[in-house]
Amino acid sequence: MGFWKSIFSSPDTASASRTIPFEEYTAVGASPRPNTQAKIYFSTDRNIDLYELEELCDAVGWSRRPIRKVKKAIAHSFIVVSMWEVRGTRRRLIGFSRATSDHAFNATVWDVVVHPEFQSKGLGKALMKYLIKKLRSHDISNITLFADPHVVEFYRGLGFMSDPEGIKGMFWYPN
Amino acid sequence: MGFWKSIFSSPDTASASRTIPFEEYTAVGASPRPNTQAKIYFSTDRNIDLYELEELCDAVGWSRRPIRKVKKAIAHSFIVVSMWEVRGTRRRLIGFSRATSDHAFNATVWDVVVHPEFQSKGLGKALMKYLIKKLRSHDISNITLFADPHVVEFYRGLGFMSDPEGIKGMFWYPN
Repeated sequence: MGFWKSIFSSPDTASASRTIPFEEYTAVGASPRPNTQAKIYFSTDRNIDLYELEELCDAVGWSRRPIRKVKKAIAHSFIVVSMWEVRGTRRRLIGFSRATSDHAFNATVWDVVVHPEFQSKGLGKALMKYLIKKLRSHDISNITLFADPHVVEFYRGLGFMSDPEGIKGMFWYPN
Repeated sequence: MGFWKSIFSSPDTASASRTIPFEEYTAVGASPRPNTQAKIYFSTDRNIDLYELEELCDAVGWSRRPIRKVKKAIAHSFIVVSMWEVRGTRRRLIGFSRATSDHAFNATVWDVVVHPEFQSKGLGKALMKYLIKKLRSHDISNITLFADPHVVEFYRGLGFMSDPEGIKGMFWYPN
């Protein structure tokens, strides 16, 4: 399986499927093409086709970013997690997330994306749980992110708290 | 001057002294010991005495953190800025801040501290402006941080916005 982690078969990722039994879930036809054998895999390999990633980001309506800068950002992220639908020898990038970190205390999650066709199936949750597990395995205890209003509840469901003890997320942009 | 940057003499840091003329400021006795010649310098050198840094953090009442982890966090930060009071050949660490980053789009500022004796003199502002300038020189356009309630106004004064467009800072801690 190499760097691939199947949320179906790996006991290592059991926590990711605690709430939703993915194996059963896809078996009952949750996949957009239920008649073909499809499995969902996670990977922490950074060697991602950046044009495929761009396509995924396009699909959710994100503004385009220079490929050169995306490459640099991936290279300098602490952890990169991609999510794939695999059918036989074909694989398709259906999710992505990454985190920056000081490798000791804090991590910040960026660019969480799940392809629209694969949303509302618990896969975003599984992706995030996988990322959190990876960060925890590196002893990172403070995992942070900046959530758009429509995903605040999604992250709350994963155990993230907004403004704990009045701590405010703040942004500085160039004028 | 090497890696040192004096906010008194360097035209490079003119923006840091836009609102408060440090040269004049210290000349009129802002230093705790106004009768001695003191200058304030910034440095991006990571080779900081970690016990001196711990002392600084103790002075503002932060909980102690393992030196080993602090060392790792500094090594893996994108930019580290320290602030020093220099009198003749003696130097004293009076401020610190660091930022993690993906080296492309985002940076997150952590561990901003100014020694209590040197607070309320505009030095925290100068330290942050110096850090922002360094991040901007690396073409980072999204600078983020998590501000405790009592420093939200301080960061607002520097141009940081809290919850822009409803974006919420969120935290995940282990149970």
